[in-house]
Amino acid sequence: MNGAESLLRSLIASGVDVCFGNPGTSEMHFVAALDSVEGMRPILGLFEGVVTGAADGYGRMAGKPACTLLHLGPGLANGLANLHNARRASSPVVNIVGDHSSTHARYEAPLTSDIKGFARPVSQWIHSSSSALTVGADAARAVQASLEGAGQIATLILPADTAWSPADSVAAPLPAPVPARVSDDTVERIAALARSGVRTAFLLRGKALQDQGLRAAGRIAARTGARLLCDTFAPRLQRGAGRVAVERLPYFAEQVVDFLAGTELIVLVGAQPPVSFFGYPDKPSWLTPQGCRIAVLAHPHEDGTAALEALVEALGAQHAVAPLSVRTALEYSPNGPLTGESIMRSVALHLPENAIITEEASLAMAYYGLTESAAPHDFLTLTGGAIGSMMPVSIGAGIACPDRKVVNLQGDGSAMYTIQSLWTQARENIDVVTVIYANRGYKILANELTRVGARTDGVHAASMFDLQNPSLDFVALAQGMGVEAVRAETSVDFDAAFARAMKRRGPMLIEAVI
Amino acid sequence: MNGAESLLRSLIASGVDVCFGNPGTSEMHFVAALDSVEGMRPILGLFEGVVTGAADGYGRMAGKPACTLLHLGPGLANGLANLHNARRASSPVVNIVGDHSSTHARYEAPLTSDIKGFARPVSQWIHSSSSALTVGADAARAVQASLEGAGQIATLILPADTAWSPADSVAAPLPAPVPARVSDDTVERIAALARSGVRTAFLLRGKALQDQGLRAAGRIAARTGARLLCDTFAPRLQRGAGRVAVERLPYFAEQVVDFLAGTELIVLVGAQPPVSFFGYPDKPSWLTPQGCRIAVLAHPHEDGTAALEALVEALGAQHAVAPLSVRTALEYSPNGPLTGESIMRSVALHLPENAIITEEASLAMAYYGLTESAAPHDFLTLTGGAIGSMMPVSIGAGIACPDRKVVNLQGDGSAMYTIQSLWTQARENIDVVTVIYANRGYKILANELTRVGARTDGVHAASMFDLQNPSLDFVALAQGMGVEAVRAETSVDFDAAFARAMKRRGPMLIEAVI
Repeated sequence: MNGAESLLRSLIASGVDVCFGNPGTSEMHFVAALDSVEGMRPILGLFEGVVTGAADGYGRMAGKPACTLLHLGPGLANGLANLHNARRASSPVVNIVGDHSSTHARYEAPLTSDIKGFARPVSQWIHSSSSALTVGADAARAVQASLEGAGQIATLILPADTAWSPADSVAAPLPAPVPARVSDDTVERIAALARSGVRTAFLLRGKALQDQGLRAAGRIAARTGARLLCDTFAPRLQRGAGRVAVERLPYFAEQVVDFLAGTELIVLVGAQPPVSFFGYPDKPSWLTPQGCRIAVLAHPHEDGTAALEALVEALGAQHAVAPLSVRTALEYSPNGPLTGESIMRSVALHLPENAIITEEASLAMAYYGLTESAAPHDFLTLTGGAIGSMMPVSIGAGIACPDRKVVNLQGDGSAMYTIQSLWTQARENIDVVTVIYANRGYKILANELTRVGARTDGVHAASMFDLQNPSLDFVALAQGMGVEAVRAETSVDFDAAFARAMKRRGPMLIEAVI
Repeated sequence: MNGAESLLRSLIASGVDVCFGNPGTSEMHFVAALDSVEGMRPILGLFEGVVTGAADGYGRMAGKPACTLLHLGPGLANGLANLHNARRASSPVVNIVGDHSSTHARYEAPLTSDIKGFARPVSQWIHSSSSALTVGADAARAVQASLEGAGQIATLILPADTAWSPADSVAAPLPAPVPARVSDDTVERIAALARSGVRTAFLLRGKALQDQGLRAAGRIAARTGARLLCDTFAPRLQRGAGRVAVERLPYFAEQVVDFLAGTELIVLVGAQPPVSFFGYPDKPSWLTPQGCRIAVLAHPHEDGTAALEALVEALGAQHAVAPLSVRTALEYSPNGPLTGESIMRSVALHLPENAIITEEASLAMAYYGLTESAAPHDFLTLTGGAIGSMMPVSIGAGIACPDRKVVNLQGDGSAMYTIQSLWTQARENIDVVTVIYANRGYKILANELTRVGARTDGVHAASMFDLQNPSLDFVALAQGMGVEAVRAETSVDFDAAFARAMKRRGPMLIEAVI
């Protein structure tokens, strides 16, 4: 057994059995170990942003980490933007980053770089293994670290000689961290506030947005009249017919101000107080209404679901009946031009039970409400603002949940960041349907230009927002990577294409020209 | 005038007139200023690796920096791998990285990140502007910093309020740094060594590999019998018919050992002693032969060309006649299957005068020697080992030298890292012909697997190297981004396609199936 095999066996012993990777020479012993050791599924991405984004999606849906396999500092660097998103999503991820052998590190070889420096802004845990004898234990610690709090990024650096030198043991798994319990005092304090009759909103994030937490939150809302809210960009939300509805905070600061107007108490459950996405010259960043009190029921590292259930008891709301979303999106007759609204009506109509929607398109966000009445589904969003997230997140979600349909609602501009994702979707035959909102531009930026108070109608600025000249042909791009694709230019065409896509398995792309 | 306009005017005053960018909301005032201020050419890339790679290529060919425009930490992060390559190439680059306004930075908004942390591993100079009143001066300092030594990466962080607040001045350009002169003592010492009759090799890098330096080096070689060498991955080399020939160090450590066997003295001119690209269990990293002396004529920050010219005088070699490469690649009759060799014979035959070749394909490297006898050209390589470099470098080279044909010899695996480059090539109508070496795999890794001593013939490892199932269709990918493309499967087809590509202007891609 060499270090690479010890590492791999230890990862598997700790429950990690999927590896999204793009290896190079320094990772060859790890690659060879994928054959000599059973139990790890390797999945190749043609670019590291695909690899790390897929690990994010996997972590959100599996609730445990996949590992990545990255080639030295630059390989990690290519994956950083989606690790930033994963960090914001509190997704558990274990990065394995190959490094030069310790004997080679002293030379300024072309690929020598400050790997820890690259890792630091996105990683809560970083370690460079110093020996094949310890790398298994390091792997067990990395897995444990990735599960701390609500989920973390753990980066384990693997010098090549640590992989190729003899090892003698496989590390036993370490106990998975248990989320901290919220104290009875806190629950009582929040219960007293909630009973006081002030206009209250619960802002939920993390596991509290899954079915069990939502049922408890629904009882609280039914009992107290409180609103249930989630962030504009929640990592994962369970919603649709039969689920407790949660209102999503709007995107723009001034919309959030209106949305929260009159709120006297915000109770945080795994969430932070709402702030605007960007700062603007004449708009607020801090969006809690003047005079509104903020109370914390559960911090992100605490067990928000258990806290909500304790609060149900404290309020005597065990038998309160929360209104559930109803499936009303059962009919829709498309006609006329293809629009953001008609796309979403088709999605709401045809979405199968227990699908996963991934969203990275401003025009999808605009019609978010329409899918509230669709079949129950999980909804995943771009948590860190680094575009290029959902193409690979849909891969990871599909790997974690092979029996569930994934629908990726994707802007054209953001799709291009990690367009290589399509190839992995084809190779792994992932059941993901990508809808490209092809409005031929970074349309949100043309809007933001005036919102920040910048004034121009010149050609240079316009050229930074438009994706024409030439237009992107997503059907050709998808076919170039082995994914079946069609273009839809009317709502009738789109509806037919989407309905067909929902009834078949395997990757498909629909370019929705709007 | 606001801060963005002050910044832009100051950059232009300092000689920076090309901006490769991918902006977002926090950079909107800079974008607006592109219209209110004249003199900056903005070029959009659909992914930041395209942006920074293009800036690398521009810096290598223009000898002055372009600026990049990047969207906060994640935008910079996406560009880091090609900044790593640019740093290894000593390319001057000025990054402008937008940041949240100072009033917004205290909140944990989704895009908040440690921008300086991201920048540090690749930047020799980093500064975050604190005021619209100083940002112009900061820009002038950044440009100066980018030209220090042989060329550096300067990263200027621009908080949004620094861009939108009122400014009152444009910074005057600072003097461009002058490379240090090598002392007469050093020249005399090297002259004495070179006269001593030991078997000598000059290892050149930087400007010494351009025509003027090479002519001096050629006289020295003619006078002393010394060999002239360059690194395996030199940022830029002028070569071909009529130029002084330089031997390129081979790639693999054991090849370099053979190549340098018997050398008694290595004289470094802007170069470092040769080391292997990777460390291997049973192969040396340090490749200078045992007992071989190393002497430094010029460090990278010193004027290597002037040092070579001084050495010519010290050796009395002013009239020595260096043998020049001769254009022998004038005829070639293709037949049979398409191979790495037949591709390069076509390139050598049809390459026009004064072209620029960019190389990122192991099969191109294997037949490098064939273009020595082609028309004179500049040759650019992947300096930092972070693949995905040459697709965008060819953009920057084409923007810097609009009258010169660019030929990009590109592996299929590495092409996929920054495949979005094709769109910018189409939009800017850059005169670049991309030859994709479509061998359907990371072929070098299958080789490296055994070289590092890893053993496997299993399917998992093989799946990490092959790019089949599905095969990539580069013709479809190019057409999807507006670039004309053809597929060649025989040497006759390739020769005809390449010959035609050399006679027309504008971007084109040839998928060479080998």
